[in-house]
Amino acid sequence: MTSPSPSLAQTIAREIGTPCAVIDLDRVERNIARFQERCQEAGIAARPHVKTHKSPVIARMQQAAGARGITCQKLGEAEIFAEAGFRDILISYNILGEEKVGRLARLAGRAEPIVAADNPVTVAAVSQAAAQAGRTLPIVIECDTGRKRAGVETPAEATALMEAIKAAGNLDFAGFLLYPPESGVEAAQAFLDEASAGARSLGLAPRIVSTGGTPNLHDLGRIAGTTEHRAGTYVFNDRMMMAAGVATLEDCALTVVSTVVSRGGPARGILDAGSKTLSSDTGKLDGFGLILEYPQARIHAFAEEHGFLDLSRCPSLPQVGEVVSIVPNHVCVVVNLMDRLVTTRGGKITGEIAVEARGRIS
Amino acid sequence: MTSPSPSLAQTIAREIGTPCAVIDLDRVERNIARFQERCQEAGIAARPHVKTHKSPVIARMQQAAGARGITCQKLGEAEIFAEAGFRDILISYNILGEEKVGRLARLAGRAEPIVAADNPVTVAAVSQAAAQAGRTLPIVIECDTGRKRAGVETPAEATALMEAIKAAGNLDFAGFLLYPPESGVEAAQAFLDEASAGARSLGLAPRIVSTGGTPNLHDLGRIAGTTEHRAGTYVFNDRMMMAAGVATLEDCALTVVSTVVSRGGPARGILDAGSKTLSSDTGKLDGFGLILEYPQARIHAFAEEHGFLDLSRCPSLPQVGEVVSIVPNHVCVVVNLMDRLVTTRGGKITGEIAVEARGRIS
Repeated sequence: MTSPSPSLAQTIAREIGTPCAVIDLDRVERNIARFQERCQEAGIAARPHVKTHKSPVIARMQQAAGARGITCQKLGEAEIFAEAGFRDILISYNILGEEKVGRLARLAGRAEPIVAADNPVTVAAVSQAAAQAGRTLPIVIECDTGRKRAGVETPAEATALMEAIKAAGNLDFAGFLLYPPESGVEAAQAFLDEASAGARSLGLAPRIVSTGGTPNLHDLGRIAGTTEHRAGTYVFNDRMMMAAGVATLEDCALTVVSTVVSRGGPARGILDAGSKTLSSDTGKLDGFGLILEYPQARIHAFAEEHGFLDLSRCPSLPQVGEVVSIVPNHVCVVVNLMDRLVTTRGGKITGEIAVEARGRIS
Repeated sequence: MTSPSPSLAQTIAREIGTPCAVIDLDRVERNIARFQERCQEAGIAARPHVKTHKSPVIARMQQAAGARGITCQKLGEAEIFAEAGFRDILISYNILGEEKVGRLARLAGRAEPIVAADNPVTVAAVSQAAAQAGRTLPIVIECDTGRKRAGVETPAEATALMEAIKAAGNLDFAGFLLYPPESGVEAAQAFLDEASAGARSLGLAPRIVSTGGTPNLHDLGRIAGTTEHRAGTYVFNDRMMMAAGVATLEDCALTVVSTVVSRGGPARGILDAGSKTLSSDTGKLDGFGLILEYPQARIHAFAEEHGFLDLSRCPSLPQVGEVVSIVPNHVCVVVNLMDRLVTTRGGKITGEIAVEARGRIS
């Protein structure tokens, strides 16, 4: 079963043109409902990460399904969503520097941002923003429980930051932000327990313990004390999520409709979707996407507007002009290349959704 | 010598915020003048590829310097530039499909597009567009002279396409489009000579022989019969062009100003520029960019909004909050992630330029 169906892809090519990112709203809704259900079963809140869709329209669908607040990765995203009426916004990112402080202060005037910090510079910056906004700001401590991304590396560092938060006078220690590696529940639990003990020693208690990641849906709620889960990719899914075992092909709600614009030799082909459409993000997978109509075709390389196909393992070969649908490796970076997503339901085009926070990197 | 200077980068961080793509207009002008000069010395026309900057403002600078026409990779780019008043537009891409035919016909009503084709489907599509526009359309044959990208693979195929072009009745055979691999002059020359003989046998003659690529500036004009060269990246340059030996650090006119937002261990650091800012395009280089202030730092991996630094070889270490400037690996895909480029001159911010054709992938 392919999505969108071949005839729908052809309609999209004819009416809208390729390449084009297309979402199946039935699947989007099913993905949203399932995530919500799993969070409810685990007894935790769902806090969708909007970095995947960057669309208030889709965030409203997530909210209607029962999500509590949203997650943004950058202040610029948070501004778009505050503008669209969202209030409970977790910014899972270190905010710092004069320009960001001013923007955070203004944001705090019209929404309820919670900012993550893993260092004293960010704690001081959020305190400055709180002072400018004339209010208290909640802050969560980002903990590195094994990924070697952002986050304090030890519970002792977390405790030192809690002291700084307490000392600031206008900050409200809200809890902990975790993004454990897959199968990293035990280490994350140990970290959290020790950091929570640190909080208690200061007379503090986390009211938010936020875990993250669509691949971590496997372990949802398995860290005792978790209050919410942040996930973004689940809303559309992609080849990476299929590889992680948290989605099937039928759960992939976004495809890129593309046209074969050239052949050249019996085993070669070229798509009109290159790195400016599908992105060079491999997601550590082989090839840059799954072509539903030619699953044996390998998108082995990109130019900016060309996707180069190795067709040597295909039992049948696409012709120039043929329209195909591609499940991208990493949907979040693909959406960020688009101005709009074409929406479909039941095999029909229903409209389009603007990627309103596209490119809001700052 | 770094660009922008540390204090300018700090000003940009404070006034505009990071991450932010910044261009040095003095360097842009110098790069434009030098390309023009080299084309003139080689006795060929310069036809800048606008895919790099996607800005009519910068294309006008190229035109003022003496460029003859522009190159676009997608119809959507050509539409933006036609809207901005450009007429002589080479679309170095196979146009096909009903939707593109209609758009090409409309474009032909207000500009002078030349379309590249490497297959009969595109020849038929351009002929259809010519019919819809009620005019003749020029077409060049894209030849694959070794890169295994788009292009007919043999001169015989080129001759067959010329026959189709002649037979169409409303197409004007304009010549050949080449994109030889580096050091591929001899093979390209042999291909061109044989294809030109094919043209003569049909009573045709190429008035355009277009070579392409900034790395091919080494070989500019070395293919006898060349009339013009398409190049894009030279306008800004990047780490790939430095690696190709066609640019020095002082020729790199675009940097991404970024802030260190986290550390974590003595040898780690995190930039606020990730794959949504610098793109995952490695350009086959080690690391995802050159940090001017910390050239020994390696941007070894990305999250969407995080650039992960290996600082183990750095004699001094950046602090959280420190602002740095990065020369990206592949500038074209970075610009495509931006809505605007901040412009500077003589170490001062002078304004900004919109990336007007950003995301015009269709």
